[in-house]
Amino acid sequence: MSDGAAPRITDVTITPVAFHDPALLNSVGVHEPFALRSIVQVHTDAGPTGLGETYADELHLERLTAVGHEIVGLDAFATEELHQRVQRVIDRVGGAGGSGLTGMITTSSTVDRVASPFEVALLDIQGKAIGRPVCDLLGGAVRSAVPFSAYLFYKWAGHPGREPDSWGEALDPDAIVAQARRMVDDYGFTAIKLKGGVRPPEEEIEAIRALRRAFPDHPLRLDPNAVWTTRTSVKVGRALDGVLEYLEDPTPGIEGMAAVAREVPMPLATNMCVVAFDELAPAVAADAVQVVLSDHHYWGGLRRSKLLSGICDTFGMGVSMHSNSHLGISLAAMVHLAAATPNLSYACDTHWPWKTEDVIVDGALTFTDGAVPVPGAPGLGVELDPDALARLHEQYVRCGQRNRDDTGYMRRFDPSFQPDLARW
Amino acid sequence: MSDGAAPRITDVTITPVAFHDPALLNSVGVHEPFALRSIVQVHTDAGPTGLGETYADELHLERLTAVGHEIVGLDAFATEELHQRVQRVIDRVGGAGGSGLTGMITTSSTVDRVASPFEVALLDIQGKAIGRPVCDLLGGAVRSAVPFSAYLFYKWAGHPGREPDSWGEALDPDAIVAQARRMVDDYGFTAIKLKGGVRPPEEEIEAIRALRRAFPDHPLRLDPNAVWTTRTSVKVGRALDGVLEYLEDPTPGIEGMAAVAREVPMPLATNMCVVAFDELAPAVAADAVQVVLSDHHYWGGLRRSKLLSGICDTFGMGVSMHSNSHLGISLAAMVHLAAATPNLSYACDTHWPWKTEDVIVDGALTFTDGAVPVPGAPGLGVELDPDALARLHEQYVRCGQRNRDDTGYMRRFDPSFQPDLARW
Repeated sequence: MSDGAAPRITDVTITPVAFHDPALLNSVGVHEPFALRSIVQVHTDAGPTGLGETYADELHLERLTAVGHEIVGLDAFATEELHQRVQRVIDRVGGAGGSGLTGMITTSSTVDRVASPFEVALLDIQGKAIGRPVCDLLGGAVRSAVPFSAYLFYKWAGHPGREPDSWGEALDPDAIVAQARRMVDDYGFTAIKLKGGVRPPEEEIEAIRALRRAFPDHPLRLDPNAVWTTRTSVKVGRALDGVLEYLEDPTPGIEGMAAVAREVPMPLATNMCVVAFDELAPAVAADAVQVVLSDHHYWGGLRRSKLLSGICDTFGMGVSMHSNSHLGISLAAMVHLAAATPNLSYACDTHWPWKTEDVIVDGALTFTDGAVPVPGAPGLGVELDPDALARLHEQYVRCGQRNRDDTGYMRRFDPSFQPDLARW
Repeated sequence: MSDGAAPRITDVTITPVAFHDPALLNSVGVHEPFALRSIVQVHTDAGPTGLGETYADELHLERLTAVGHEIVGLDAFATEELHQRVQRVIDRVGGAGGSGLTGMITTSSTVDRVASPFEVALLDIQGKAIGRPVCDLLGGAVRSAVPFSAYLFYKWAGHPGREPDSWGEALDPDAIVAQARRMVDDYGFTAIKLKGGVRPPEEEIEAIRALRRAFPDHPLRLDPNAVWTTRTSVKVGRALDGVLEYLEDPTPGIEGMAAVAREVPMPLATNMCVVAFDELAPAVAADAVQVVLSDHHYWGGLRRSKLLSGICDTFGMGVSMHSNSHLGISLAAMVHLAAATPNLSYACDTHWPWKTEDVIVDGALTFTDGAVPVPGAPGLGVELDPDALARLHEQYVRCGQRNRDDTGYMRRFDPSFQPDLARW
C-alpha cells in the first residue's frame, strides 16, 4: 500500500445546515420548518476527507468544535484513541445538556454522541484510503441491501402561514392509510411504523387497525414516545395483540416498561429508556425491553453500535434501528452498519421520505423494494455536493433556528400544549 | 488502492505441530511432553497469506479442515460471513466435544472456537493488504506495549524417563519463588500468577505468601482451576485478603462462584464458568465473577473478543486474558487484541516462557519490562519460518500425541489420580 493509507488528520470543518421539514407531529410538539444537522468533514494529509453527520444544537456544535481541535494529528485508524480524546474534551468542557434530541431523549452519553460523527468520518477515510466500503471495516456485509420501514406521522397540511406540503394533512386513520399508501408505492417499504403519542390512544389503535386492513402482510409498529401510563399501555398492547410486530416506548422508564412488558403479548422496543451503555444492565435486570433501537448518532458511532448489537444478541434482545430527521451521510452510515450487523432482523426506521433537500450528490443511495442497496464504493460511498452544502448552510444562517424545540414551536399555535410523559 | 487489496481466499493449509512442553502440573494432571497446535494458513489470489493458530485435537482438526473447504472464494474482509459459514459447517458435522482445552473447559462454543483461527488469519490478510497492523483493524492501539504476567507452575524436574529441563522441580514455596525470580529477571514481568489446584490449599496459600514476601509490589493471582469447595474457596480467599489482585476459578460453576464472591474480599476471575457468550447472562444475573479472562481462541477471534470486553465494560466486569500453551502467531494476535482493548486493565497470561521452539521467524515479539511492544508491521507482524514449521510438524507426526490428555498422562505415573472438581 502507498503511504497514502496512513492518513493523519490535518483539519476538521463543521458546517451547520438546515433543511425543510414538514409539520410532523409527535408527543412533544411539532417539527419546526427546518431540521438542523451538522456536517463534519475530517481532512487528512494523505488525501481522503471523511464525512460525518450529527445534530446541530448550539451546545453540541461547541463540543464538536472543541473535539475538532483535539484530534488534529490523530491517525485516522485510531478510533479508540478518538473516543478517549472526546472523553477528555467532555471532561474539560462539561457534558450536561445539548442532546439535540428534543426532550424525549435526555440520558444518552454525551461522549458517545459527540464522538459519533468523527468515528464515522474516520471510517470513511479508512475505507477511501484502502479502497473498501465502510461495511468491510465492520466485518463485511451479510446482506446486500438494508430494509427500511415506512415512517408515518400525524401531521398538519403545512407549517402555519406557509403553503401546504405535498403530503397534506394527516390526523385520522384514513389519512394515515393514504400516507402509507403513497410511501409504500414510492419506496416499496415492507414494514410500517406509525409515530403515535399524538391522538388519544383509541384513535391510534384505530389507525393501526386501518393500516392492518390496508396492508395485511406488512409488519406494523406504533411508537407513542412514552405518553401513556402503564395501564393505558397494557390496554393498547392487548388491543393490538397479533397486529403489532413490536410496541415502541409506550410508557416512560425502565420500571414502567418492565411492568408493561409483563402484561402485553408483543415485544416492547425502545429508543428512550435505553439510550446509553450504562442503561443496559438495569434494563436487562428488569427485562424491560425486548428490542433495542440502535442509533449510531448517540451510541458512539458504528463500531460501538455493533457492540450494542452484540450485547443485545448475548442478552436475548432484538435489535432494530432508530432515526431522527437526517441527510444522506447519516443514511449511508446507517446502511453500512446495518449491512454488517447479522442480528439486526427488523427493517430500520428512516425519515428519508420527508426531506426534499440534501448535501450529498444524488444517486448513491436508492430504495428498491423498501431497501437500500449497500454502496460498494470506497468509504461511505457518498460524496458531498459543495453547492448544496453552501445552500443548506445559508438556509441555517437565515432560518434563525438554533436548537431543536418542537414544544416551543407547538406553543406558538397552542399555548396550552403540555409535552408531559404518561399523560394518557 | 490496487486490486491487491480485494483478496479472495484460494486455499487453506492446516498443519498440526508439536512442541516440547515441560511437565507442568495442574488440577487435571500434568502437561504431556509435547503441546499440540494447528497452524492455519489462508492463501489468497491477491498475494498475502494470513496466519492463525489454534488447538490440534483430532476432532478440532477435522472441523478446521471442513471449514477450510467452505471458505474458498470468500472475500478476506468478510469476517461476519466467515462466522456464518463456520456455523453452517458445525450444523452439518456436529459440534459436541473436541475442545482441545482439557477437561477444564467444556462449554465453550464450538463455532467460536473453530472460527477463531480463520478470523485471525483474515485480519492478518487485511492488514497485509492495506499495510496496517491488525490492531488498526480493531480501533487502533491504546497502548504501545502489552503487559503480561509471569505464569508459575508447580512442576516436575522433567518428564519421567527424560532429562530434567532447565527449570527443575517446583513443588514447594521456595521453588515457586525461585521460578518466579528467574522469570521476572528474564522477562521483567510486573505481575505474577500461580497455577494452583495441585498442592493442598494450605500449601498454595503459603506459596502465595512467600511470593508476596519476595515480590512486595507485584500483583499476585492464584488459579486452582475449580478444585476447591465453596467453603475452602472462602477460607483461602479470606486468608489471602489484601494479597491477591484476584482469585481465579476457585470453585466450579456460576452458582458456586457467586456463593464465593459474596464472602471473599477480592474479585473473582474466570476462564472456566464463563467461556461462551451464552454464559454471560446467567453470570451477570448471579454476579458470579468480577473479571472475565478473555481468550480469542474460544471467544471467536479478535473482534468477538473485543465484543466480550465491551460487554464486560457495560456490565461492570473487568477483563484479563487467558492463555494455553501457544506459539508466536497466537502471542501476536493476543498482543494486537490487548493493544486495542481499552478496558483490558490487567497483565495478560501467557505460557510463552515455557516453550523452547516456535514456528515463526525470531525477533518480531520481544519482552521489555514484562510487556510486548505492539508489532507495527502489516498484519499480525509475524512471519512463518517454513523450516521450523516442517520440523514441528514432523515432531507432531512422530510424537504420537493426538488429543490433549493431561489426566491420562498423569495416570501413567499415578494410576489412582482423580481430576475431580471441588475435591478439596
